[in-house]
Amino acid sequence: MEFTKRQIKIIEIVKEFGPITGDEIAGKLSLSRATIRPDLTILTMLNILGARPKVGYFYTGKSGMTVFSKKVSSIKVKDTMSLPIVMDENSSIYDVIVGLFLEDMSSVFITNDGFLAGVVSRKDLLRTAMGKMDLNNTPIGLIMTRMPNIVCVTEEDSVLDAAIKIEDKGVDSLPVVRVVDEDLKKLKVVGRFTKTNVNRIFVELARENF
Amino acid sequence: MEFTKRQIKIIEIVKEFGPITGDEIAGKLSLSRATIRPDLTILTMLNILGARPKVGYFYTGKSGMTVFSKKVSSIKVKDTMSLPIVMDENSSIYDVIVGLFLEDMSSVFITNDGFLAGVVSRKDLLRTAMGKMDLNNTPIGLIMTRMPNIVCVTEEDSVLDAAIKIEDKGVDSLPVVRVVDEDLKKLKVVGRFTKTNVNRIFVELARENF
Repeated sequence: MEFTKRQIKIIEIVKEFGPITGDEIAGKLSLSRATIRPDLTILTMLNILGARPKVGYFYTGKSGMTVFSKKVSSIKVKDTMSLPIVMDENSSIYDVIVGLFLEDMSSVFITNDGFLAGVVSRKDLLRTAMGKMDLNNTPIGLIMTRMPNIVCVTEEDSVLDAAIKIEDKGVDSLPVVRVVDEDLKKLKVVGRFTKTNVNRIFVELARENF
Repeated sequence: MEFTKRQIKIIEIVKEFGPITGDEIAGKLSLSRATIRPDLTILTMLNILGARPKVGYFYTGKSGMTVFSKKVSSIKVKDTMSLPIVMDENSSIYDVIVGLFLEDMSSVFITNDGFLAGVVSRKDLLRTAMGKMDLNNTPIGLIMTRMPNIVCVTEEDSVLDAAIKIEDKGVDSLPVVRVVDEDLKKLKVVGRFTKTNVNRIFVELARENF
């Protein structure tokens, strides 16, 4: 979207003098109020200017990003999630490392009886590999991060909510889960949502491919 | 930004009947052309409708995301980059692993004589830790990914360009470099730009904090 020179001037005037009435803005431009009415309509619709009755126009500091917020609130995790690798908590640490390399992933989700029990990251595995454990004969369950300390999302969550969880909890990847039994906290892993997904959405939205 | 009911109707009409003239759209709404003129102006400004002389309005399939594209093309890497950890290529693999844990980073940039020479990731280090190398007495230079196989950005690149590089090259982090000597390919590492930065920009733009 391109602003006209007049719209840019109006934004500058409101930035400097706001709150300011439409008539005053028109006066500063030596134009009639009617001439600039469509500009004011557009700029308020885009949330770049706010308007308050009897007060006038003021600059919101926003830049039309509401469209973006709405868009990323409407894209669901299930629309963009990736396939997870899931291994049982009795798997050896060695097998999990091999699985992680085979699938080239940054983390592995660990299940007990088919339900989410833990997560291990490359970082956890590197720390363990540096230690003195017997990687072939130690089950991954011993070193994984366990429920309930795992941040999850569901397929119906928005990608914005998922990105906020990644940011706020400082994690790289989120298991996407389906709740099988709320009381027993039984969660089935159906996907994986990571910073890689966020980066891809970011690029595709910018290319208007989404 | 909220569309009015009339604007939504106009979008639907153009989706179904476009290309269609302004008069025809007005006719379908039983309104005058003058009444809907501001709506058509807004919708074309937002790139939701396109307009071609003597043809009429058509639906672009875009959703106002041009604002987003422009925004992320205008934010520079230097506005959001993080501090890097940089170690000399004679450092032992063990020291690099320790550095990586101390700073809680996913990769370390390696320099020779102060200039970028390589990159090592957690994945490289995990692979090495699983092998039989003497981590204390092997220099990191032996296992790092070397120039010119390193994808870099400069401080002046846009965050969109950086995100595209991350997506297209399948990497997690990019060294931010300043070119000291173009011919000798001498690059000084001044920052780090990763998927974590992209995720943060994504969240902050959605919250309109940027």
